Amino acid sequence: MPYGYNGRILRVDLTERQVGIEENDEHFYRTYMGGSALGAYYLLKEMRPGCDAFSPLNILVLACSVVTGAPVSGLSRFSVTAKSPLTDAIGDSQAGGYWPAELKFAGFDAIVIKGRASSPVYLWIDDGQVEIRDAGHFWGKTTGETQILVRREVGDGDVQVACIGPAGEKLVRFASIVSGLNHVAGRTGMGAVMGSKNLKAVAVRGRKKVEVFDAETVRKIAKQAVEAVKRGFSLHELGTAGVVKWQQDDGGLPTRNYARGVFAGADKICGEAMRKQIYVKSESCYACAVRCKQVVAAEAPYKVDPTYGGPEYETLAALGSYLQIDNLVAIAKGNELCNKYGLDTISAGGTIAFAMECCERGIIGRKESDGLDLSFGNAQAMVEVLERIARREGIGDILAEGSARAARHFGKGAEQFAIESRGQELPAHMPQVKRSLALTYAVNPFGADHNSSDHDTSYEPEADLEGLRRLASLGLLNPRPLDALDNDKVRFFVYTQQVLALLDALTICIFVWGPSFQLLPINDLPSLVKAITGWRVTLWELMKVGERRTNLLRSFNAREGFTKEDDRLPERLFQPLPDGPSAGKGVDRCSWEIALEKYYAMMNWEAQTGNPTQAKLEELGLGWVADHLME
Amino acid sequence: MPYGYNGRILRVDLTERQVGIEENDEHFYRTYMGGSALGAYYLLKEMRPGCDAFSPLNILVLACSVVTGAPVSGLSRFSVTAKSPLTDAIGDSQAGGYWPAELKFAGFDAIVIKGRASSPVYLWIDDGQVEIRDAGHFWGKTTGETQILVRREVGDGDVQVACIGPAGEKLVRFASIVSGLNHVAGRTGMGAVMGSKNLKAVAVRGRKKVEVFDAETVRKIAKQAVEAVKRGFSLHELGTAGVVKWQQDDGGLPTRNYARGVFAGADKICGEAMRKQIYVKSESCYACAVRCKQVVAAEAPYKVDPTYGGPEYETLAALGSYLQIDNLVAIAKGNELCNKYGLDTISAGGTIAFAMECCERGIIGRKESDGLDLSFGNAQAMVEVLERIARREGIGDILAEGSARAARHFGKGAEQFAIESRGQELPAHMPQVKRSLALTYAVNPFGADHNSSDHDTSYEPEADLEGLRRLASLGLLNPRPLDALDNDKVRFFVYTQQVLALLDALTICIFVWGPSFQLLPINDLPSLVKAITGWRVTLWELMKVGERRTNLLRSFNAREGFTKEDDRLPERLFQPLPDGPSAGKGVDRCSWEIALEKYYAMMNWEAQTGNPTQAKLEELGLGWVADHLME
Repeated sequence: MPYGYNGRILRVDLTERQVGIEENDEHFYRTYMGGSALGAYYLLKEMRPGCDAFSPLNILVLACSVVTGAPVSGLSRFSVTAKSPLTDAIGDSQAGGYWPAELKFAGFDAIVIKGRASSPVYLWIDDGQVEIRDAGHFWGKTTGETQILVRREVGDGDVQVACIGPAGEKLVRFASIVSGLNHVAGRTGMGAVMGSKNLKAVAVRGRKKVEVFDAETVRKIAKQAVEAVKRGFSLHELGTAGVVKWQQDDGGLPTRNYARGVFAGADKICGEAMRKQIYVKSESCYACAVRCKQVVAAEAPYKVDPTYGGPEYETLAALGSYLQIDNLVAIAKGNELCNKYGLDTISAGGTIAFAMECCERGIIGRKESDGLDLSFGNAQAMVEVLERIARREGIGDILAEGSARAARHFGKGAEQFAIESRGQELPAHMPQVKRSLALTYAVNPFGADHNSSDHDTSYEPEADLEGLRRLASLGLLNPRPLDALDNDKVRFFVYTQQVLALLDALTICIFVWGPSFQLLPINDLPSLVKAITGWRVTLWELMKVGERRTNLLRSFNAREGFTKEDDRLPERLFQPLPDGPSAGKGVDRCSWEIALEKYYAMMNWEAQTGNPTQAKLEELGLGWVADHLME
Repeated sequence: MPYGYNGRILRVDLTERQVGIEENDEHFYRTYMGGSALGAYYLLKEMRPGCDAFSPLNILVLACSVVTGAPVSGLSRFSVTAKSPLTDAIGDSQAGGYWPAELKFAGFDAIVIKGRASSPVYLWIDDGQVEIRDAGHFWGKTTGETQILVRREVGDGDVQVACIGPAGEKLVRFASIVSGLNHVAGRTGMGAVMGSKNLKAVAVRGRKKVEVFDAETVRKIAKQAVEAVKRGFSLHELGTAGVVKWQQDDGGLPTRNYARGVFAGADKICGEAMRKQIYVKSESCYACAVRCKQVVAAEAPYKVDPTYGGPEYETLAALGSYLQIDNLVAIAKGNELCNKYGLDTISAGGTIAFAMECCERGIIGRKESDGLDLSFGNAQAMVEVLERIARREGIGDILAEGSARAARHFGKGAEQFAIESRGQELPAHMPQVKRSLALTYAVNPFGADHNSSDHDTSYEPEADLEGLRRLASLGLLNPRPLDALDNDKVRFFVYTQQVLALLDALTICIFVWGPSFQLLPINDLPSLVKAITGWRVTLWELMKVGERRTNLLRSFNAREGFTKEDDRLPERLFQPLPDGPSAGKGVDRCSWEIALEKYYAMMNWEAQTGNPTQAKLEELGLGWVADHLME
């Protein structure tokens, strides 16, 4: 069966309480593959420009890809795409776990959700049978409670549940969608969009394994990953928590609301400390040998519930070094609360860091902070304010809007302390140190993101021959990974953005196939896709999918009125860092402005607007998008 | 040895009679690979813009690639690059045979030749030892005589000789370089550049096999090709001569100076007729299982010497249907003469077709034609005028300038009958039928060429599922191969041009790896390159090399002052064809003009000039070329 892939997409209209099934041909799937590429396709095709993110007109797409659910490491992920209430631009967030594979076992590649239910509902997908069910009795419940209650109600303990917590219900603009209680689609507020639709959960049970074209090759690739992990793989040892130490050593651990790159308490919150003090076990996504998810537990000074998993690197930084908090158990508690209430840890941490700096500078007074002592380093205040954000109580109601909106609320120059781009709080990799991220954070269609391009410090030529080899495989043998944002860095970004965008469209884990890790070599991607779908793809065809995805996302933003004026960085990044190995480093404004122009030009985007040209869209087979933009 | 490739480039200064050896690092080779990409590198780096093609300042590069000479089908080819005396733009011509492999066995990837010898010389490369030797006693000799004399002089019958004939010496602007007597780098007058340098021949003997990184994989790929040929392969059966019938069936066999697409005598000059009447045997290039080269012989009405091989499809058309000549033996004789004297058969046929039309229309009188009856269909006149062109006698001296210059000489509106683009006569694939070629012929940097993009008639979706699969592997699943030159056709050209440009840079035979044939799947190219060089390349990296090559060639032209004004087609192509299956078809001028603009835009080239933008060059790692263009 050379063209064997038969995908199905579930269409849900919550207003009408109707469901339907859409089938598409190979050409459709090979063009969009899945993930946010597929999501953006529906948003561009079917959504009216300019509508509010919380309007029933917003479309929420939960999308796996053509390869999801095959029993290979890194292949159980999904993307959530919708107009973002945090950025008002395209939203995009990915998570792993068991839910994505389960959706495929139930026979669906993606769910496209429109409208708004008149009262809380959940979606129950049982092996191809789909019901919209009442969720009034789950409303207000935590994610953990919801998972238990849904499983009990449908009478099946193996059901996978992706749901929102109270934060999503309350339209916290950085609310997340949580499945399996520690697999979180955190960024860009997709949980709030789900909440605005009165959709509490999507419960899935599937009993058909994913049919593959060539099971033997799938088994072979799966085994390769297992063996590669056995040979030793950092993410298998400490999970992403291991990254704390590397960043601290480079002076790139964002500290005190991004004002510094070194944190005196780094040793207390690093992966090694976590392993020693609170580690319980490692968990996995479906069929993945990496097992990077760290489960933790504690009794004091905070009782930490292990069912919500342990903090990732991003969380250790955002709830730790961002806030100068070196209390590991408090951070683990904060992580538990975020997953329990459905909050993005990065935006939560970034917003609290902003609030702490505003308090310190007198922009927020004790009255406005409801008496909370929001000082840097105050772990108890961090835990408390998370509760208030989730419930939108007091200052929590303001911070629930995210740092950019909160800054506008507080005024008094607060904007300069909101460390965000396009309204989204910066993740924990510093553009002052990883130079190319100054571009990524500014131009990425869904705001500052650390998984949208590769990080250039990984490639010190003499120190890292293997890194150099990986770059070589991308045609970037000699990127001069020097401490500057030059043309070669722009190229580095343009090329690695394409790879990461492809992995997003395939909803493949970057820890397995990403250029930084390459547990499996990127040259094997075409074999993987062929083994699963039967299509004789080339890596070149796949890379075009990546390019297509970036252009789709950017086109959505263009239609919403975004231009290059929105490609900004927080001012703080242009200031030199004060101390540590990165002392004196800052983003050079002049280089950065030149790099932006160069990036648009290399992307074949318009110089005036930074938006895709008609010719670029047509070259990618997206002439219909160009037509939309010209309307 | 992960970075095991150690290439050497031979540098020759004929003025100074000096030779030297240049070594380059992996980054250099991975960036340029070989072929015309490597050639254009030297022309752009080291040649002064604006010099005459026959000046000693012109640089002649004979380049294999990093994979040449490995014992796999399709891997013994080389490119010749220099400023072309026919087009005054970049020249580029490829040929196969044994010479390319032998050059690698002698330890060299390429030869970069500068200056002009004060008297005729030849180059003798003996296993790394290089001599510039006197060739006064070979001057005036045919290619066959030269090969015998050189082998005798160096005392080795296995020496491979690439040489020019009398036509190259006489600076016939479409003179070729011939090796093994039937492997011809014909196009763009590279033989004349060699003649202008007083370089008669390059004789090579190498005794070291090419060292490869992974011999087992090389053997495996070689075996795959052998087995694929065994399963049946059209080029193995009849060589390219088999194409005559297909073209005639499509109404795309250029006839009577391109005025018609069907030829009444097609059956008499087709591959099947050749096989029946004059075929002797099939020959091969080094280590190639395809064996597409047809050897022919005849006694009457012309004695045809089998040592010069038999006519390819292009020759059967150019010396046959172009001239309405249905005498197969006369065509074979014409082929022999072209290879013996060193003439490009396509430009020779195209120029004679032009002359015949001019005679018929009274633009050329009997006096000017030296009494020759240059009527369409006159086989004897074709044979005779080839002799005169090669010796630059009488009308031959004018026609030796090529049809564009000859038309300017004759005046009286002769230009409209010169079927050329950028000064180079059109090959035998009609843009009126294969729509995308209307773009290729106009914009290709070295003039009208049929191997610079894929041909779109191959892909009738219902008729040709395999063709569709090939397109799919290029990300062009749905190119709507309809009878129009639309955006999808531009895309088709942009994408397949990149593949063909890559094969040129790797000097790989398109019959083995080209998208039309794919005897071996293009997905195996990275494995091939890795098995030979040890570099872990991806197809994406390789495709970037193809894109780089096209941009290098176009940049050379830009520096010489070419702009989009030079991207033209002969007027005749815009007229509807009169009869046969293609009756009524012509290039639609309006679609074509739109397609040209679209092409520049998709290539990220300047709309005003059609030349590469600075950003595109920088994206390809060619910032130094952009600097050249801005000088």
